[in-house]
Amino acid sequence: MTTRGETYTTTFMKRSHDIKKYFSPAETQRLVSELGNCLERYYRECQEQKGRTVPELTPETYIRMAGEALNSGKESDFATLASMALANGHHLHDPRYMGHQVPPAVPAAALFDVLGRAANQGAAVFEMAPFGTSAERAVVHELGKLIGWEPGKFAGIGTHGGTLANVTALLAARNIRYGNSWKSGLGMDGGLKPAIMTSADSHYCIARACGILGIGTSQLVKVPVDARRRMDLNKAGEILATARERGLDIFAIVGSACTTPTGSFDDLAGIAALARKHSLWFHVDGAHGASFLFSDKHKHLLAGINQADSIAWDAHKMLFVPALSTYLFYRDARHSWQAFAQDAPYLFDPDDPSGMAEFDGGLRTFECTKGALSLGLWGIWSLYGKDFIASLIERAMDTTLAFRDLIEQSPDFQAAHDPQCNILCFRYLPEEGVVDADALSQLNQSIRNRLVAEGNWYITGTRLDGQYWLRVTIINPLTGTTHLHGLLEAIRNLATVHSGNNFRPPVT
Amino acid sequence: MTTRGETYTTTFMKRSHDIKKYFSPAETQRLVSELGNCLERYYRECQEQKGRTVPELTPETYIRMAGEALNSGKESDFATLASMALANGHHLHDPRYMGHQVPPAVPAAALFDVLGRAANQGAAVFEMAPFGTSAERAVVHELGKLIGWEPGKFAGIGTHGGTLANVTALLAARNIRYGNSWKSGLGMDGGLKPAIMTSADSHYCIARACGILGIGTSQLVKVPVDARRRMDLNKAGEILATARERGLDIFAIVGSACTTPTGSFDDLAGIAALARKHSLWFHVDGAHGASFLFSDKHKHLLAGINQADSIAWDAHKMLFVPALSTYLFYRDARHSWQAFAQDAPYLFDPDDPSGMAEFDGGLRTFECTKGALSLGLWGIWSLYGKDFIASLIERAMDTTLAFRDLIEQSPDFQAAHDPQCNILCFRYLPEEGVVDADALSQLNQSIRNRLVAEGNWYITGTRLDGQYWLRVTIINPLTGTTHLHGLLEAIRNLATVHSGNNFRPPVT
Repeated sequence: MTTRGETYTTTFMKRSHDIKKYFSPAETQRLVSELGNCLERYYRECQEQKGRTVPELTPETYIRMAGEALNSGKESDFATLASMALANGHHLHDPRYMGHQVPPAVPAAALFDVLGRAANQGAAVFEMAPFGTSAERAVVHELGKLIGWEPGKFAGIGTHGGTLANVTALLAARNIRYGNSWKSGLGMDGGLKPAIMTSADSHYCIARACGILGIGTSQLVKVPVDARRRMDLNKAGEILATARERGLDIFAIVGSACTTPTGSFDDLAGIAALARKHSLWFHVDGAHGASFLFSDKHKHLLAGINQADSIAWDAHKMLFVPALSTYLFYRDARHSWQAFAQDAPYLFDPDDPSGMAEFDGGLRTFECTKGALSLGLWGIWSLYGKDFIASLIERAMDTTLAFRDLIEQSPDFQAAHDPQCNILCFRYLPEEGVVDADALSQLNQSIRNRLVAEGNWYITGTRLDGQYWLRVTIINPLTGTTHLHGLLEAIRNLATVHSGNNFRPPVT
Repeated sequence: MTTRGETYTTTFMKRSHDIKKYFSPAETQRLVSELGNCLERYYRECQEQKGRTVPELTPETYIRMAGEALNSGKESDFATLASMALANGHHLHDPRYMGHQVPPAVPAAALFDVLGRAANQGAAVFEMAPFGTSAERAVVHELGKLIGWEPGKFAGIGTHGGTLANVTALLAARNIRYGNSWKSGLGMDGGLKPAIMTSADSHYCIARACGILGIGTSQLVKVPVDARRRMDLNKAGEILATARERGLDIFAIVGSACTTPTGSFDDLAGIAALARKHSLWFHVDGAHGASFLFSDKHKHLLAGINQADSIAWDAHKMLFVPALSTYLFYRDARHSWQAFAQDAPYLFDPDDPSGMAEFDGGLRTFECTKGALSLGLWGIWSLYGKDFIASLIERAMDTTLAFRDLIEQSPDFQAAHDPQCNILCFRYLPEEGVVDADALSQLNQSIRNRLVAEGNWYITGTRLDGQYWLRVTIINPLTGTTHLHGLLEAIRNLATVHSGNNFRPPVT
């Protein structure tokens, strides 16, 4: 395959000079300076609402643009490429962004993040990221205290996203309940079917977990929601009482804190009591809402979370750091070892008497190579303090309540629910009065589509009981009252245009 | 729960001034400038080998250090915190780093990466990351052409890491073979057990996939390796011929390109033929090795990869971008829709006639929120060109072959194998001659432990047929011949110290 001798030495020494140019510290500093210019301009233009919030071109156009850059055949310059990427992204730092549960990240968090990337720390193995893994441990220690757990008894690991955290927790629960399932596979004996219970409004990744883990999505038992769109605990109790008769072995119950459509918080203490009574694993999907533990004013929403067996908590939602940065917690640290098992002597040496397995997170995470995903949160927490993060959360709540008030004062708008957190579903109601429900759905969906096509304002939508509602997540600390008023005015204008185009739904 | 009226409006307007400070474009630019200073110093000190490669403190010490920063109770400064994180990390940009399959990333790649994080683009939904998702599509298009596939027929998606990509591919394969398994769960009928076949040296995440997906790790059929540590295809054929008699329905075969311990490339064309004959899904774990497709000189290692049904390919290994950035490819684009199914109207509206599902990657990835993980690769490819990436790959190969030559010329060292790529296992042999195999294992493991404890050089180790071998991945473009000589000299010195401490193994 290869010739021997001095050939390689000579060849690569010739190339080394060229390659060093691309790793030059001085050149890197120059690029970082260009990065600073690009980011300053980007954030300023977003905050000044200079352009659209959502860019207007089609996927095909952007793909062609990105492809042309790849194939230009000559060296380009950093600033041009960086500006292209920023200008044609979604401008979350525009105060008119009130969309998904993805925040405009605190800029410093992104800069701390880049440290782990520039140094490429692999945080699943302590040795490959001594400080990156330690920052994760320090953050986990503090978050665990907020949950109300005693240091030393619980475990927390960083992972890439809420879906992974939820799937990992349910995998641990599955392996603990069905001791042979990791090795032998699931359900070969034809007995009761393993099943998981959650609310009808839980995130789709809980159903996915059933599909992925061999449980089957048909074995996800969805409990109806109550008037506040929380899991109906009476119905949950009834279902549990008859589950075995229906051939189901419900082994885990998943509480939402909060749900995605309406931001409703399940009664975690009530679920915990059910879980104890029926010996269920109690998992909390706290991807969005666990962060409210930072606020003395709002932490009551999470009452009972300390009784969970496991908790998923996204820092990249209400802790305002860039995606992805998620924590998975186990109340009993020993359970954290149950999700996975592997043999990889080159990485995790079982004969190593140093006790490093405790610090090599890879034994307990999906990821083998893992980014140092805690540096962003560790950085802004250290730089600005915990109260700063709490103030962002409280501001989001305050703005949402202000929006709720505004909607209540506007006869041409209707809120679907009283906001439990910073998510609110609402809709436009034509002034003529009550209209056919389907037509109202269609009108509001059309408003949302046009709003996004217009590109100035960004909100989302969802369906509740089959009806389409507009939906905001007030997750942008830069959004203020003028923007709330502006959004409603923009919707009114669109509805009028809509009407002019004969799209107005029939008045019943 | 909440009081009404003007309260919220007033409260949050009072807070808004403070919060804006932390999002200030000018202040961000100042922080980026500090980041530039920190990175310039960091890269320079790494390249000048000023300090250790691996820092020396215990996990407990670093965790305390990180925790003290969190709890300092006063605003700190960015440069101090950033320098703390960098100095106490693993210094992959030190030329003496020759460790895991994690590269010292091209600095510019990290700076392109930060764009997606600073703007927090959520690349699982086109609308949330128009350019981020488009850059991914453009990169996928080019990588697919390197595989040898026709644009328009295949699919590729970005995901967070090789484990996720491998698990997702095998999940798709499982769902395709067992059409009810997503909904109904696995194996309730008591028939043949679903099973997967791979080589004994495959990455541990393939076994994990079996554990996760409900197949069971006992149903992972491991084919012995041949003299070059590739899957033995004769034995694979024999096993397949008798699998059903043993109650196994082998539905997928996983080729390694390459294996982790020794960097061996399975005969992909040979596996493809077997897969065709037995109607198996053919998956290639190309996490490390698929990147050799960039090099005309080395792409022969991947002959047959174009016949795979699915391929996992890490950009954060041999494409020299920061972790995590992985691509999962399907030869038949339609298969990419088989891994998952979900109902999430607020995100992916099935009634939406716009055809956006094609561009909303979240329908086909584990992740619901996904980082814009292609910007790093898109950036350096656009900035420096494809040939630059190829030159990094070829340099890694050349340096590895130079190291092989050096070991061959050194009577006190022995290579375990001829390197197929840039991974090489070797060991120190005391000059006195042949020693007891276990003692030799112990000696070399002790050398590795001491080497890392000393902190100047960084290599790894693995076990082959029960014996411990030192192991390098020559993935550092800054490593040159002087460093190769230096490493061997350092090992010799440690072995001598070892001997002085009566640790020398008995000569047989």
